[in-house]
Amino acid sequence: ISNIDMEIGAMDKGDYDYFMLKEIHEQPKTIEETFRGRLQNDYSEIVLGGLLNVFPKIEAAKRIVIIGCGTSWHAGLIAEYLFEEYAQVSVEVEYASEFRYRKPVLSSDDVVILISQSGETADTLAALELAKSKGATVLGICNVVGSTLSRETEAGVYTHAGVEIGVASTKAFTAQVTVLTMIALKLAKRKGTISSDDYTMLVKELAEIPEKGRAILNDGEKIKAIAEKYHEAVNALYLGRGYLFPVALEGALKLKEISYIHAEGYAAGEMKHGPIALVDNNLPVVVVAPQDDYYEKVVSNIQEVKARKGNVIAIVTEGDKGLKEMVNDIIEIPKSHPAVAPLLAVIPLQLMAYHIALLKGCNVDQPRNLAKSVTVE
Amino acid sequence: ISNIDMEIGAMDKGDYDYFMLKEIHEQPKTIEETFRGRLQNDYSEIVLGGLLNVFPKIEAAKRIVIIGCGTSWHAGLIAEYLFEEYAQVSVEVEYASEFRYRKPVLSSDDVVILISQSGETADTLAALELAKSKGATVLGICNVVGSTLSRETEAGVYTHAGVEIGVASTKAFTAQVTVLTMIALKLAKRKGTISSDDYTMLVKELAEIPEKGRAILNDGEKIKAIAEKYHEAVNALYLGRGYLFPVALEGALKLKEISYIHAEGYAAGEMKHGPIALVDNNLPVVVVAPQDDYYEKVVSNIQEVKARKGNVIAIVTEGDKGLKEMVNDIIEIPKSHPAVAPLLAVIPLQLMAYHIALLKGCNVDQPRNLAKSVTVE
Repeated sequence: ISNIDMEIGAMDKGDYDYFMLKEIHEQPKTIEETFRGRLQNDYSEIVLGGLLNVFPKIEAAKRIVIIGCGTSWHAGLIAEYLFEEYAQVSVEVEYASEFRYRKPVLSSDDVVILISQSGETADTLAALELAKSKGATVLGICNVVGSTLSRETEAGVYTHAGVEIGVASTKAFTAQVTVLTMIALKLAKRKGTISSDDYTMLVKELAEIPEKGRAILNDGEKIKAIAEKYHEAVNALYLGRGYLFPVALEGALKLKEISYIHAEGYAAGEMKHGPIALVDNNLPVVVVAPQDDYYEKVVSNIQEVKARKGNVIAIVTEGDKGLKEMVNDIIEIPKSHPAVAPLLAVIPLQLMAYHIALLKGCNVDQPRNLAKSVTVE
Repeated sequence: ISNIDMEIGAMDKGDYDYFMLKEIHEQPKTIEETFRGRLQNDYSEIVLGGLLNVFPKIEAAKRIVIIGCGTSWHAGLIAEYLFEEYAQVSVEVEYASEFRYRKPVLSSDDVVILISQSGETADTLAALELAKSKGATVLGICNVVGSTLSRETEAGVYTHAGVEIGVASTKAFTAQVTVLTMIALKLAKRKGTISSDDYTMLVKELAEIPEKGRAILNDGEKIKAIAEKYHEAVNALYLGRGYLFPVALEGALKLKEISYIHAEGYAAGEMKHGPIALVDNNLPVVVVAPQDDYYEKVVSNIQEVKARKGNVIAIVTEGDKGLKEMVNDIIEIPKSHPAVAPLLAVIPLQLMAYHIALLKGCNVDQPRNLAKSVTVE
């Protein structure tokens, strides 16, 4: 028996046609909910009460293993980059369904973080049991209060994104990434692997995400026009580098889930090792290309796609001039630090998937063949 | 200036229409070449002279990082499962293009294995320099004797697959997997993490691969008929679990590279977290489903695909009765131990990609947009 914990009105679509669109638009607010009581008012400090007792173990860990499925696995991939860069701990990210059946090397020195919106994903719970049996410290990140994951882990952090009805996860994903970013930064601070200035700067960057997210959402109608151009495509590629490689995977998954277009995400640097063979004048290629350290490399990937007549839709930093002439369509997002950019860059990809699916006449809230929580193996 | 090292006749297609078909058929022989001087005649022992001096470092490693691009990255993924299961060392597999640009955690305690057929892949060489600068022990696995990778690493193993002309790698891949399997088993033996019986059994299983590979190739004409049924598809999914998950990725990459059909590989357990939305009566789904520990789980994945009217092409163990009635097309491979099964299961996938590309009128040896070695970034 489980109690369903829900605000009054949460099951109401409000002014939106679909829960998915409502949930996409809720993200600035849900990220603020995720901050509540955790980011101090002056943004000088992160407080994660749920992890207080286990932080010494996390600090001592030689390795962190992050486990999830689908969208939660993508959140884990972003966390890998954050933990390695800032907390200088090596991270391995695993599919729950693979991890649980093979013979992974795990010991009581390891910390395992399990991510699941529902906290009931069958493969993730089986991975949790395996990790516990090996003596690892197990932590959970989930959205549903009182879920099995929250009860069976040693400690954890709730995402507080509120009930998510749309089968394709949106606000739960950004809440997961927000929580993982807070953990990574706090761990870095405790370990002394981040300078005090960088810490303050990044906490502030994180705190500014909701406002920047609202700016993207207010300008969301533009994305409808782009969706109209591409909704008849049968395939699509999504490319990104670094922190935005998992965002490319997530953008492709959204399109796949709700529009049934075969979209595939790739690390942009892998393009030349195979996927570029797919590029012709029918293929939309979505490239996440904000102005960060990878910008030049990504621009060169875009040039390769264009040279082969692919249609490039680029997600760029507000005010980017260089790419405007080069690509077919452009979506601007506010400037941010690369480490928090996934929280912004994913929003236009969610909206694009939504509008394309709608134009195709798909049921965006309940796509065919998919269940909200995969509670069977 | 580099010398090209090549047997007389290696540039000759012989009785084959294309280099790719020749190279697919050469695999039993190239795997034997890879064994030469390394597997003792009675298969009681593996000798890897190139690693003799560094084995103590590999044994001491808390973690092994494997780096590659494209097909070499897939070989690395198979190695992850082998090293973790038998040598009980944790392994992380990285795209060279991602690894080199982010801030990975590496130290002189780590062993980094870099894989590249040509030994000249730009991103892999840059990752090598990064790993060296962090003091890690760097090892190379490459095919081209005297290549930069072979010169700039501390030690390594050549794959001895002979010159590979087809842009889509086939025999170089199976040679890489063979070498990695030998390293994993030898390491396990030295560390005492494998029983003497299991070691002998697995060495023997490995030694039997060429003969079993010949049996698959002799029966290869059957695959032509399957190719005829599906060559007009625009999309395809490839699924596998465990050791055969990377084989699903590699099978999809082959089809993508040479036939321009958008094929995507997935861990079969991830199917329910998104890709199953793509399944309808137009979608071919290739499932690698031999009789191993995952068999029941994979059969249940096949049932889910069939329930949604997908067309399943299953790679099964010789004599499998259960799947015959359930799937649309079946390709049998000889029974083998799961740890060496990738070396067999990949062959029908290579042949299927070849025949489909041929039926589509594609240049299988020189697919559009692709280069044999990606020596630019």
